[in-house]
Amino acid sequence: MTQTLANDRLAVDRPWLDAMMEEVSAFGATGEPGALNRMAATTEHGKARDWLCSLMERRGYEVRVDPVGNVFGVLETAGPDAPLVLVGSHLDSQPNGGRFDGAYGVVAALAAIEAVRAHLDARGEAPGCNFAVVDWTNEEGARFQPSLLGSGVYAGELDLDFALAREDGDGVSVGAELARIGYAGTDAAPRADCYIEFHVEGDTALEQSGRHIGPFERYWGALKVRAAMLGERAHTGPTVMAERKDAGLGAAYVMAGLRAMSDKRDGALYTSVGRLVVEPNSPNMVPERATMFIELRAPEQPMLEEAEAELMVLLEESAARASVGHEVISIDRRQAGRFDPRLVALCEAEAAAQGLETMRLETIGGHDAVPLSRYCPGIVIAVPSVGGILHHPDEYTTPEDCERGANVLAAMLWRLHEAEGDLDAATARSEGRGAT
Amino acid sequence: MTQTLANDRLAVDRPWLDAMMEEVSAFGATGEPGALNRMAATTEHGKARDWLCSLMERRGYEVRVDPVGNVFGVLETAGPDAPLVLVGSHLDSQPNGGRFDGAYGVVAALAAIEAVRAHLDARGEAPGCNFAVVDWTNEEGARFQPSLLGSGVYAGELDLDFALAREDGDGVSVGAELARIGYAGTDAAPRADCYIEFHVEGDTALEQSGRHIGPFERYWGALKVRAAMLGERAHTGPTVMAERKDAGLGAAYVMAGLRAMSDKRDGALYTSVGRLVVEPNSPNMVPERATMFIELRAPEQPMLEEAEAELMVLLEESAARASVGHEVISIDRRQAGRFDPRLVALCEAEAAAQGLETMRLETIGGHDAVPLSRYCPGIVIAVPSVGGILHHPDEYTTPEDCERGANVLAAMLWRLHEAEGDLDAATARSEGRGAT
Repeated sequence: MTQTLANDRLAVDRPWLDAMMEEVSAFGATGEPGALNRMAATTEHGKARDWLCSLMERRGYEVRVDPVGNVFGVLETAGPDAPLVLVGSHLDSQPNGGRFDGAYGVVAALAAIEAVRAHLDARGEAPGCNFAVVDWTNEEGARFQPSLLGSGVYAGELDLDFALAREDGDGVSVGAELARIGYAGTDAAPRADCYIEFHVEGDTALEQSGRHIGPFERYWGALKVRAAMLGERAHTGPTVMAERKDAGLGAAYVMAGLRAMSDKRDGALYTSVGRLVVEPNSPNMVPERATMFIELRAPEQPMLEEAEAELMVLLEESAARASVGHEVISIDRRQAGRFDPRLVALCEAEAAAQGLETMRLETIGGHDAVPLSRYCPGIVIAVPSVGGILHHPDEYTTPEDCERGANVLAAMLWRLHEAEGDLDAATARSEGRGAT
Repeated sequence: MTQTLANDRLAVDRPWLDAMMEEVSAFGATGEPGALNRMAATTEHGKARDWLCSLMERRGYEVRVDPVGNVFGVLETAGPDAPLVLVGSHLDSQPNGGRFDGAYGVVAALAAIEAVRAHLDARGEAPGCNFAVVDWTNEEGARFQPSLLGSGVYAGELDLDFALAREDGDGVSVGAELARIGYAGTDAAPRADCYIEFHVEGDTALEQSGRHIGPFERYWGALKVRAAMLGERAHTGPTVMAERKDAGLGAAYVMAGLRAMSDKRDGALYTSVGRLVVEPNSPNMVPERATMFIELRAPEQPMLEEAEAELMVLLEESAARASVGHEVISIDRRQAGRFDPRLVALCEAEAAAQGLETMRLETIGGHDAVPLSRYCPGIVIAVPSVGGILHHPDEYTTPEDCERGANVLAAMLWRLHEAEGDLDAATARSEGRGAT
């Protein structure tokens, strides 16, 4: 049966997909072409969620809102004990952001699941597994920090109380805002056995290569360190050089040293000090304190851990060289890791079956698929974004690419249905077919 | 006659000197022990000036106020064509400053000139030169920038209109405030042939050496450069290292390089970046701009000029190394120079005659004597300040040290009287006597 399945018969409803992208883009539209202000748990985000819930309910999905406000549309048509494949992304945006980042993944999820349902109906088949759509709360981290708040809680990496207590710049909490927009839920989230997310690419790799589907193979790890050099305030006039304890100088040594750490790895390690706060920051005062916001990013965990150790030595040595002390204020570690290689293979095989070349990508920024991939097999897959633009009104993905992504997703879901949610079996079937 | 002059007969009136220090300290007293708020051209400064003018007028001085508000008490008793020796300092203070910085030099000037007058009267001699006391406007630069405003205009280094147009933090101009306190003068300033200033030391060199008189031999030059590294804003996540234009990194190279410039001169060159403004200064953004407030200070002009050339190369090379551009926003050059060596010698000889050991000092900060020394032979001479404290209510010079300084000043003035204002002759006489 599988071998004879023609992919052109399993396809998303393109006019409906296009219409959904249009409709969802109205929520938070600023008037500027393409622009969206739909930050997490705002009224606009709430309206977009209402629209999504209404769509899903009309099609028979069971809408569930969990305590951190994640919205699920669950289709448990394979029975309560069958594996569940979760598909989605997020409806929140950056301030003055674009229409596709996040929203495309949610809309594509619904379109793909509906394509599978229609195909099942046409064939008179029963689903081999359950499906659910998800809109995660506060993916962007623009209004509330940290980002990936809803998926982090879902994956057990963040505490619910911590998440609800996060405040925006005006001191308003996530919990209060979810209640205000009607998304402080009490439902149990469905347990996912597999997670697939489609997302527009924030880079030009696909566009430049002329390919249309980019499964992310791995996610970079990040180390965010806040550290301060501790000097002594003194006048730059009379204070002899030998007696100066210049915190700014210590920071300069760290910044130069960080770049050297990257250079000796041919740039494979990303290093930066994006924010530097010098105190008292007066032209004629030797700085007494220089607080650095350091970031290290690496594609693999061992490199990141090696770099962290090097950074600690660098801080120590830079401080000593500038005759100052130092302190590490905080360290935020985000592990590097790999998305499930079976999902990469499944994506590649189904894309190939649709005549689409793929390109394996790596993600440095965060995606909900990162915490999810530590909870269950998970992956995020890119479709091209024109010019690699993200978080900007000019963000644009062609309707053709939106359709291509949704069709690959539908095919992946179909394989999972066939294999009754068994990822090994789905991948084997898919690759077997792809090879024939 | 000179050889037989006993120095103990030429001495300031110690009780009067002490009383004047007490009295002047009442103007701007904050209530906190030792504290003064007597910033330039404030009501309190005006009252201190009124007190000084009244004192001088009662003793027969001709009070003149020039257009930038410098207050002179002129004693033209040697006739209008005789050389004039100008002596003084400033009555303005730092905010929450101390009692001695500036005020001591004005009070000591008056006490010393009066000692010379009394000694002349006792001997029935006529003065060989004229004397004048001065209180310069806005020495501190705390309320109005730049500092040394009155002496700068007097010496022809600053434009009068520029000086009068300087505004404080509330937008009130020097000119308006001088008018308000009654010190927008129209008198011609007396032309000085020699300038001598006594001042409390802002360091512990005298105290630690156990000496009481410190003639400043030279003043350091300073180069204040505002320069910016010009990078490109980018996300620290996805932007590959090779494509980053990190303005903060460029600044780090400059800061490290500046220290190396000092180190290779064994610290003789002072270098600093006291203020650094990074933009946008966001933890996950590559800085697009880093503005540095650079200071170079050197004891000699050639070193400063060499260092300026090196700095320009350093800016260029640091920018290139970080793949960024750069711009020099402003350069403020303050020449290094020497006080008149004859005045150093005269001070040393007269101090020695009074049994006082001296120590030659260098000044890095500004003194009115710096612009004055480029106008006529000039010098600033230090008496100890306990703990080297300046610009703070704890600032303190003992009455004994106040007296010692005033007596050395009186002796120097006496020599100038004897030599009819001829500095070469005065120094030769003094050294001749000192050697016998």
